[in-house]
Amino acid sequence: MKSNAEPRDPNYEARCRASFDAQRMMKTLGAEITKIAPGQVEIEMPFQAEFTQQHGYLHAAAVTAVLDNACGYASSSLAPPNASVLTVEYKVNLMAPAVGERCIARATVKRSGRTLTVCAADAFMLKDGAEEQVATMTATMMTIYRKEVQHDP
Amino acid sequence: MKSNAEPRDPNYEARCRASFDAQRMMKTLGAEITKIAPGQVEIEMPFQAEFTQQHGYLHAAAVTAVLDNACGYASSSLAPPNASVLTVEYKVNLMAPAVGERCIARATVKRSGRTLTVCAADAFMLKDGAEEQVATMTATMMTIYRKEVQHDP
Amino acid sequence: MKSNAEPRDPNYEARCRASFDAQRMMKTLGAEITKIAPGQVEIEMPFQAEFTQQHGYLHAAAVTAVLDNACGYASSSLAPPNASVLTVEYKVNLMAPAVGERCIARATVKRSGRTLTVCAADAFMLKDGAEEQVATMTATMMTIYRKEVQHDP
Amino acid sequence: MKSNAEPRDPNYEARCRASFDAQRMMKTLGAEITKIAPGQVEIEMPFQAEFTQQHGYLHAAAVTAVLDNACGYASSSLAPPNASVLTVEYKVNLMAPAVGERCIARATVKRSGRTLTVCAADAFMLKDGAEEQVATMTATMMTIYRKEVQHDP
Repeated sequence: MKSNAEPRDPNYEARCRASFDAQRMMKTLGAEITKIAPGQVEIEMPFQAEFTQQHGYLHAAAVTAVLDNACGYASSSLAPPNASVLTVEYKVNLMAPAVGERCIARATVKRSGRTLTVCAADAFMLKDGAEEQVATMTATMMTIYRKEVQHDP
Repeated sequence: MKSNAEPRDPNYEARCRASFDAQRMMKTLGAEITKIAPGQVEIEMPFQAEFTQQHGYLHAAAVTAVLDNACGYASSSLAPPNASVLTVEYKVNLMAPAVGERCIARATVKRSGRTLTVCAADAFMLKDGAEEQVATMTATMMTIYRKEVQHDP
Repeated sequence: MKSNAEPRDPNYEARCRASFDAQRMMKTLGAEITKIAPGQVEIEMPFQAEFTQQHGYLHAAAVTAVLDNACGYASSSLAPPNASVLTVEYKVNLMAPAVGERCIARATVKRSGRTLTVCAADAFMLKDGAEEQVATMTATMMTIYRKEVQHDP
Repeated sequence: MKSNAEPRDPNYEARCRASFDAQRMMKTLGAEITKIAPGQVEIEMPFQAEFTQQHGYLHAAAVTAVLDNACGYASSSLAPPNASVLTVEYKVNLMAPAVGERCIARATVKRSGRTLTVCAADAFMLKDGAEEQVATMTATMMTIYRKEVQHDP
């Protein structure tokens, strides 16, 4: 994963990984950050039957979870040290049934502003060594500077 | 919950509940259908720490799971007996941190077509007896008639 | 149109109407604000052949124009005097062909925050005295306080 | 513009251009198809003051018009001869003020199904010889086969 973006926080990777590790949801899904660069994040999670819908595919919400976080940490990788990133909204198109061994979400920052960041992400299922795209997300993220944050520890 | 829509399947409730019960994701989240009428569905789930993000709120994806299913079964409640309903796409705006004891998602069909159905849903957190809206979804659902379905049992 | 929201600017109506009148696009479309209340705006425009697509219906973009502005001024009606409102993003579902004499867009603020506002709007065609819904929008609006605005006169 | 997609209609370009030319909205905006290949379309339009908002930028709806059509004809370029393509829904993020001499929209089909097609498009303003991205769209298109079409001439 290569990126031309310049991080404002040289410690961005450690900061993003610490925040990711604080998400119980990611642990529950068995998800992990597999690549991170300024403005780009890849997250993988295994297929698990606990998160399937009625046909045995991964539920759209499980795929959405890793798409959302890939966008969130891609945005966060460009944020200053004293900032938090919140999801404002996202839109997901489901393109194929989510079957396979692993789900991979890859996000890129399309525009990074002081307050709002626009990200795009694609989700793929890895099956028998081949990837198939199963979903795509566009997301708007908001950077909250520390003094404004009221619900952070 | 009242509705003016006329179901094409008098058995819609049993059909929708059976499909919902076949979703492992709903069982994992502890979610249940609390109300169902033609074109309208309400789903509730308890707050569970396993599905939280880094600030201890419910992860957006958990809220999305019940919004998506409320839309899906609202659409399915108007479908004929031999049909399946798939999510084409959804868009979610997150409006407040998802804190409280329970999450309630309420969906309504806004337009029901032969192939595509447009649904709107709102999600609320119940906290100390009061509801606060935390998210809103617009979703497009697709009705697949049995002969076209290839991945159904 | 009734509203429980309290405007922060007692002059909101004059301010919104002046901004609307400064939009050449609205004049081109023949659109006008037909109702305005705190957090709620209705806009109407006539059907004009110049803005149709290949089947002779109003182009989705013309309908989007009035939906977007209804959301924008609904948001602006709740903003303080020294603020501008910009559209961050919107999502539109097209529900029926836009045929008829007039197009009516009605928007409501669903959540008003300091920086971001979430609005919902529906568009209807008036045909032979009856309204038919043709589209629905969810939009995110951003309030820019004057000192931050760089591209305002 | 290159594409690996195989058109099902060898006459796709003439068919798409004829449909585009039948859109009064495109003529009103001065828009034209500048490139077309299977699954990919580029549309350009000049900046015109008639379609601006209150700050003198192109109105989001004008940008949306060319994004929507770029997606629609990208989808249509892969459709069979006897089919029509309708927009189901779209989501647009506005990324920068639309100022400059020309607006360029470029769309690509991300997934082409029998009934539904998912497209992504970006819009740029050309100003002093340089392009700046001003918006991005994700759209869902529906292919209607001739026997099902009731509102076509």
